[in-house]
Amino acid sequence: MESILETKLQELKNLTIEIGDLGAVSSILGWDQATYMPTGGATARGRQIGLIQMLSHQRLTDPKLGKLLDDLRPYEESLPYDSDEAALIRVTRRNFERAVKVPTEFMYQMSMHLSDTYTAWVEARPANDFARLAPMLEKTLALSRQAAEYFAPYDHIADPLIDMSDYGMKTESVRALFAQLREQLVPMVQAISEQPIADDSILKQFYPVDQQRAFGEQVIRRYGFDFNRGRQDTTPHPFMTRFAADDVRITTRFSERDFGDAFFSTLHEAGHAFYELGIDPGYDATPLGGGTSAGVHESQSRLWENIVGRSRAFWEFFYPPLQAAFPDQLGKVSLDAFYRAINKVQRSLIRVDADEVTYNLHVMIRFELEAQLLEGTLAIRDLPEAWHARYQSDLGLRAPDDRDGVLQDVHWYGGLIGGAFQGYTLGNLLSAQFYQQALQAHPNIVEEIRCGEFKTLHHWLRDNLYVYGSKYTAPELIQKVTGGAITIEPYLAYLRAKYGELYSL
Amino acid sequence: MESILETKLQELKNLTIEIGDLGAVSSILGWDQATYMPTGGATARGRQIGLIQMLSHQRLTDPKLGKLLDDLRPYEESLPYDSDEAALIRVTRRNFERAVKVPTEFMYQMSMHLSDTYTAWVEARPANDFARLAPMLEKTLALSRQAAEYFAPYDHIADPLIDMSDYGMKTESVRALFAQLREQLVPMVQAISEQPIADDSILKQFYPVDQQRAFGEQVIRRYGFDFNRGRQDTTPHPFMTRFAADDVRITTRFSERDFGDAFFSTLHEAGHAFYELGIDPGYDATPLGGGTSAGVHESQSRLWENIVGRSRAFWEFFYPPLQAAFPDQLGKVSLDAFYRAINKVQRSLIRVDADEVTYNLHVMIRFELEAQLLEGTLAIRDLPEAWHARYQSDLGLRAPDDRDGVLQDVHWYGGLIGGAFQGYTLGNLLSAQFYQQALQAHPNIVEEIRCGEFKTLHHWLRDNLYVYGSKYTAPELIQKVTGGAITIEPYLAYLRAKYGELYSL
Repeated sequence: MESILETKLQELKNLTIEIGDLGAVSSILGWDQATYMPTGGATARGRQIGLIQMLSHQRLTDPKLGKLLDDLRPYEESLPYDSDEAALIRVTRRNFERAVKVPTEFMYQMSMHLSDTYTAWVEARPANDFARLAPMLEKTLALSRQAAEYFAPYDHIADPLIDMSDYGMKTESVRALFAQLREQLVPMVQAISEQPIADDSILKQFYPVDQQRAFGEQVIRRYGFDFNRGRQDTTPHPFMTRFAADDVRITTRFSERDFGDAFFSTLHEAGHAFYELGIDPGYDATPLGGGTSAGVHESQSRLWENIVGRSRAFWEFFYPPLQAAFPDQLGKVSLDAFYRAINKVQRSLIRVDADEVTYNLHVMIRFELEAQLLEGTLAIRDLPEAWHARYQSDLGLRAPDDRDGVLQDVHWYGGLIGGAFQGYTLGNLLSAQFYQQALQAHPNIVEEIRCGEFKTLHHWLRDNLYVYGSKYTAPELIQKVTGGAITIEPYLAYLRAKYGELYSL
Repeated sequence: MESILETKLQELKNLTIEIGDLGAVSSILGWDQATYMPTGGATARGRQIGLIQMLSHQRLTDPKLGKLLDDLRPYEESLPYDSDEAALIRVTRRNFERAVKVPTEFMYQMSMHLSDTYTAWVEARPANDFARLAPMLEKTLALSRQAAEYFAPYDHIADPLIDMSDYGMKTESVRALFAQLREQLVPMVQAISEQPIADDSILKQFYPVDQQRAFGEQVIRRYGFDFNRGRQDTTPHPFMTRFAADDVRITTRFSERDFGDAFFSTLHEAGHAFYELGIDPGYDATPLGGGTSAGVHESQSRLWENIVGRSRAFWEFFYPPLQAAFPDQLGKVSLDAFYRAINKVQRSLIRVDADEVTYNLHVMIRFELEAQLLEGTLAIRDLPEAWHARYQSDLGLRAPDDRDGVLQDVHWYGGLIGGAFQGYTLGNLLSAQFYQQALQAHPNIVEEIRCGEFKTLHHWLRDNLYVYGSKYTAPELIQKVTGGAITIEPYLAYLRAKYGELYSL
C-alpha cells in the first residue's frame, strides 16, 4: 500500500516538474523578449508564450492531476505537516484548485493580450501615448475582472487577485495595514521636508556604464551571487527571473547620469535572486521551488537593497573601492556626504527612484487606483488624471506628462490590474521584521557588514527563509520566523532610527 | 464541400503552426544555452528542451493529424502542385510520415542525451579530452543507428539520416558526386601547393574585437541584414537560428589575432539568415517556413561568404573602409596583398578555417568516417586515430591533438552521427550553380558589388530561391532555378577561374 502511494507521489512530482519546466520555458521566452529580441520577433513571441502558458495550464488543470491529488489525500494526512512530501501535495492541490477555476482558453487570450500590450507599452511610454494604450488597458481591466469573477464569491473584487500574489491578504487587511502605516509616514515625510534637502548632485555626475556594471557586479559577488548560477543583463524595467535552481537571472538599467539607478536596482534584483537561489534544490521545478509570495520576495530585495545596501556600515567598506573606481566623481566627496546623498528623502514622481520613506506612498496610490478600477468607481479614460490628482494630494507633485505618471510602471501593461503593487509595501514591512530576527540571532551582523562580509546574514536568511521555497504560506513563514504576523513596528523603528539621525528629527 | 475542406485545411495549418512554434521555442532554448546561459543551467535546460521536443513530436505524430491529411488528400489532388495549399498538405504529410516512424520516447531520450553531450563537449574540447566523450559518443552512434533503423529498408544505413537533411540524396549518390569532385580537386590543390604560399600574416595581427564586430555588422547591413529582424551574438561555434519570420539570429566567434575568423563567419551566417528572412512570411511557423535542405541552405552561406565576400569586386568597395577601421594593421597593405591573404590556399587542419579549394576535402573525410561508423567498420575508440590517418593521407597533415582533430566540430556532439556534413559540399556546388543563374539574369551584379550594392543579387535570390521556403524539395528547386540537377561543373569553373588567376595555374 505504502509503495503504491509512493509511486503515485512520484507521478505527482513528475507531473509538477513538467508544469514547472513549462513555466521556466515561458520565463525564458519572456526574458529574451525583454533583453535581446529584435522588434520583429514580437508577434510570434506573443503566440509562443501564449502556447506554452496554455500547455502549462492544461496540465495544471488535467483531471488526472485532480485524481492523483484525491488518491493522495490519505497519504498526505498521514505525513507530518512539515514534511516535503505533504507540502508538495498540499501546494500542488492549492494550485490545482485555483487553476481549474480559470478556463485554459481565457489564460491563452489573456497571455496573448498582455504580450501585445507590453510590446505597445515599450513604444508608447517614451512617446507619452496613453491614448494608444487606453483601449488595451480597457481590455486588461475586463480580463482582470473576469479573472476575479472566477473566484467569486469574494468580499472585494480585488481579493482573488491579491490572494494570487500575497496569499492570505485581502483588500480590507491591506487597507488596514496601509492606513496604520500612512498615519505614521505622512508626519515623518512632513517633518523631513521641513529640513534642508540633502544634496545628491554627486550621484548625478557622468558615470560610465561599463564601470557602473563592474562595480555593481563586484558588490553582489561579495553578497554571494554566483555568476555560474546566474547573470545580469540590461532591460528598460529591471526584474529577476528563475529558469532553474542554478539559473536565476537579474536585469538592471543604466543611466550614465545617475549612479544610484543601476546600482541599487542591481542590489534589489540580487536580493530577489538570493531567495530563489537559496531554495532547497530538491524542490526545483516543483510548486515548492519558488518564493512563497510577492511580499516575502520583496522583503529580500528591499533588505539587500536598502537595509544593507544603503546602510552606513555597508559603505564604510565599499566607499573606498567606489572612490577608486570613480576618482574624478567621488575622490573628494566624504563618506558622510555620499551616505546622505544615497539616503536623500524627497517627495518625487517615480516609484522606483523613491527613497525609503516616501516609497510606500507611491505604492498606496497604485493600490487604491487598482481597487477603484476593479470596483468600477474609476474608468480607464479617467486614470491618467486620477493619477495626477493622487500625486498632487499625497506627494504634492504633478508629473509633467503620463510618461512619468500612469505610464511609468510596467505592471498594468504586462500583467493584470489588481494585486500588482501591495507586495512592495508588505515587503518593506517584512524586510525590517526579518532583519530584526537575523540581528537577534547574530548581533555581529552589522560588524561583518562593516568588513564587507555577508555570510552570516546570507546564510541565516537562506536557512530560515529561502530554503523553504513555497513549502509554507507567507503567513506561516512569517509566524515561523518572527513568531507573529506582519506588522508595521519594526519597519517604522528602522525608519525612525535611520532618518531621525540623518535629519535630526 | 469546398468550405468543409477549407476548414480542415485551416485546422491543419493551425496544428502545424503549433508544431512550428514548439520548434521555435526549442530553438530559443538552444540559442540561450549557447549564448548566455550560466553553466548551472545546463541540467534543467536539457530537460526543458527534451520536454518541448517531446511535445512537438507528440503533435507531429498525432493520429488526428494523420486523419486530417487523409481527409485532405482529394482536396490536395484537386489543387495545382505549385499552390501554397497543396504544398502545405504535401510537406506536412512528408513530415508526418517520417515522424510517425520514430517513437516519441526515443526522441526525448535522444534530445536529453545530445544536450548532455553538447555540454560535455564544451568543456572537453578545450581540455583535449576525447576519452570523456567516447562513452557518450558510443551512445550517440547507437541512437543514430536506431534512428536509421526506423526507416528500414535502406540501401545504406546512412541514407535515412542523409535524407533528413538533404532530401533526395543517398550515400551512393553523394559518394559518386564527391568522387568526381575529388578527382578534380586533388590535382588543383597539388598544383597550388607547388606555388609560393600566399602571405596572410597581415590577417593575424591584433584586431580589437569591438571594431571587428562593428565592421562585420556594417557589411552585413549593407548586404541587406535588418537588425530589427535579427541580431548577432557570440558563441564558440557560429550558427544561424530562426525563431520567426522576423526574428532570425546569427552568432559568430571572435579571435583578436585573426581578422578572417569572425568576419567570414559573420558573412556565412548572414547568408543562412538571408535565406530564412526571405521566405514568404505567410509560411511562418508552418512546415513551409524554413529552408528546404542543408545543401541549399549552405549554398547561401557560401555564396555570401565566398563567392561575394572573398571576391575582388567586393573588396574594391570594402577595403578602403576596412583600412580606415584598422589603419595600423592595414593602412600600408595593398588591396592586392589583402585579396591574396584572404584567399590563401593551404592544406590545413580546421574545416571552418579552410580555404575554398581544400574545404571540400575536409567534408569528404567526415562524410566517409560517418558512413564507416554507421556501417560498423569503424569503432568510436578508433575514431581519433582514423581521423588523424585520413588527414595524413588526404591533406598531408596530422593534428597535434584531438582538439584540432576529432573534437573540432560540434556536429557529432550536439546531433546524430550521419547526414551532418554532406550538405556543406553540396552547398558549395550549388552556390556556384545559383550564382551563375543570377549572373545570367543580371550581368550587372558584379559591377554593383564593386559599388557596394547588393540589391539586385539579394532580390534575385529572394525571388527565385528564398521565397519558396520548403515548398519545393531541393531537387525540385534546383531544377526550377538551374534547369537541371546538382552538378560539379559551375563550382569547378569558378574555382579554376579565381584560383587560376591567383596562382597563375
